[in-house]
Amino acid sequence: MTSEGQETAGGYGEFALIERLRSKLSASAKGPGVLVGIGDDAAVIDAGGGKCWVISCDVQVQGMHFPAEGASGFSVGHKGLAVNVSDVAAMGARPLYALISLGVRDETPLSFLDEVYESINREAQNLSMSVVGGNVTRTEGPFFIDVFIAGEVERESLLLRSGARPGDQILVTGSLGNAAAGLYLLNHPETKIGHEIKTMLTYAQIRPQPRVEEAQAISALRQATAMMDISDALAGDIGHICEASGTGAVIWEHELPISSAALNLASVILTDPKEWALYGGEDYQLLLTAPISAVPALQEAVRAAGGGSLTPIGEILPASEGLCLQKRSGRVPLEKRSWDHFGKPEKI
Amino acid sequence: MTSEGQETAGGYGEFALIERLRSKLSASAKGPGVLVGIGDDAAVIDAGGGKCWVISCDVQVQGMHFPAEGASGFSVGHKGLAVNVSDVAAMGARPLYALISLGVRDETPLSFLDEVYESINREAQNLSMSVVGGNVTRTEGPFFIDVFIAGEVERESLLLRSGARPGDQILVTGSLGNAAAGLYLLNHPETKIGHEIKTMLTYAQIRPQPRVEEAQAISALRQATAMMDISDALAGDIGHICEASGTGAVIWEHELPISSAALNLASVILTDPKEWALYGGEDYQLLLTAPISAVPALQEAVRAAGGGSLTPIGEILPASEGLCLQKRSGRVPLEKRSWDHFGKPEKI
Repeated sequence: MTSEGQETAGGYGEFALIERLRSKLSASAKGPGVLVGIGDDAAVIDAGGGKCWVISCDVQVQGMHFPAEGASGFSVGHKGLAVNVSDVAAMGARPLYALISLGVRDETPLSFLDEVYESINREAQNLSMSVVGGNVTRTEGPFFIDVFIAGEVERESLLLRSGARPGDQILVTGSLGNAAAGLYLLNHPETKIGHEIKTMLTYAQIRPQPRVEEAQAISALRQATAMMDISDALAGDIGHICEASGTGAVIWEHELPISSAALNLASVILTDPKEWALYGGEDYQLLLTAPISAVPALQEAVRAAGGGSLTPIGEILPASEGLCLQKRSGRVPLEKRSWDHFGKPEKI
Repeated sequence: MTSEGQETAGGYGEFALIERLRSKLSASAKGPGVLVGIGDDAAVIDAGGGKCWVISCDVQVQGMHFPAEGASGFSVGHKGLAVNVSDVAAMGARPLYALISLGVRDETPLSFLDEVYESINREAQNLSMSVVGGNVTRTEGPFFIDVFIAGEVERESLLLRSGARPGDQILVTGSLGNAAAGLYLLNHPETKIGHEIKTMLTYAQIRPQPRVEEAQAISALRQATAMMDISDALAGDIGHICEASGTGAVIWEHELPISSAALNLASVILTDPKEWALYGGEDYQLLLTAPISAVPALQEAVRAAGGGSLTPIGEILPASEGLCLQKRSGRVPLEKRSWDHFGKPEKI
């Protein structure tokens, strides 16, 4: 596996690579029972009896998705599970079972591995999930964790990216930008900011909470038209919904729900917190669309599920209007900037 | 994640590490619907309506499970899929869906990745499986591939390690030792042996063929009492069946089915091919137990499935008799030697 004189993965660009690999699998990608295959956050399989299985996996590599030094095993285990749970939950499915693959170095401390498993065990219990297997292998490279999740959803409650219609409201749970603000603090530990704000924002980055109960409440209502989680960034993820639905969209910049902690940090470091909300990613909030008449019921359902707010942040438009950002000064095209570096695990 | 003055994974020993990690997951290991959880080759979930889902994953790391230099992407993709398919099939399940996680270096040649996906695509088509998703991430360490498989089986046809009873015959599909003989040839390319033999044995090592149709035929008969695939080695794997079933066993050394190719190589390099068959591993043949009265029907079913031979190689004994090897000179305890280095992915 030498690369002299050959094209390499690093030189090819991430999205081109993903497209290239997808095309190699075209013949085996969609057999019987596959409702959603390659190209979405999770696959959906018709399990019969009006039920679907939703399955997904994602790798996290040390030095890529968490720091090479200083990340606790608690955070690594927690996030490894959470990002995958989020993908499955955001389709309306109840995450039920997990398998965990670990790549371990000889010099990996036992205490670190203990923490990884303890946090997975705790989080699985919180979510009423079962960790049913996995495997451990040795690697000479960085430690990695690959988590596979299987969940179940009634076919009628399944929510995909593809159901949005012009006129639908665009809604988001909770606050946006906390994870990006937390990443700033991890990279700038010298920042002068209150302890509580620092803890809240860094935890949003290292211990994201997938919105499982809120997603269940939303899918049970059967009034939302499309849903996904915000992992890359709002600006990119709304584009995924529009592409799958054949629509355009406008995001109302001044309606973006930004936490007081993020506003506070932004004022200290003199940055625009809307940048975090639009382009920062990793918030693992739910992004959904629904007819305007359904919004009050959805807001009430999310509140009842313990999830706090569900905020309208824009509207689905006809495809011809493209993707735009409504600023106070007028509409501008929405930049597609997001986390598209090659280090992020990208779904094929 | 520094290890100064701390206990490390490498210093702890593989089996102790696995046990330690398993214990951390005890609280979340067996929720509702989990028929088989941590500790088997695959997990089994009650899907309702008399059906079970069987799910499994296994990582292969470059330099650990395939050579750092010289392994083709075809072989890496093929084996990554095959070893996981084998785990699911050996419980009697039909493998249906796969997810593929790849860890890719910047300098990984595109041609290598193309080969990985092309071989997975081809093998999935051969097995009528759908590759429904996965993800690609960057790593600075060795290339790795983690494959997740989901399959389905009727609950009445499910075969576990735990059903063997004293008096049952121990049976194995195909030949044993080819993969170990192939590994010898890969490590000793200067060996003077015919081209056909070399190809056949090295392919047994680098392109193992999971016995899916044979496993389906066996489980459909509902006469076998226990089954698993031979991945570690016969000597270790029969121990797993005995442990799960609460029995002992005797293996008849002179009944071990060894291919003429392996016999030929063994005579050239002056080694005992029974060592390969007993302790070599990676043959991915099926190891099963059944009452003696069921053996002719099982042999006919395997033959009809295109699988060739099903050979009686021993008998299940009461637990008090332990694990033994019947040699011409008499019975000796069966050594538990097998592939237990830390590099092999070990199921938790």
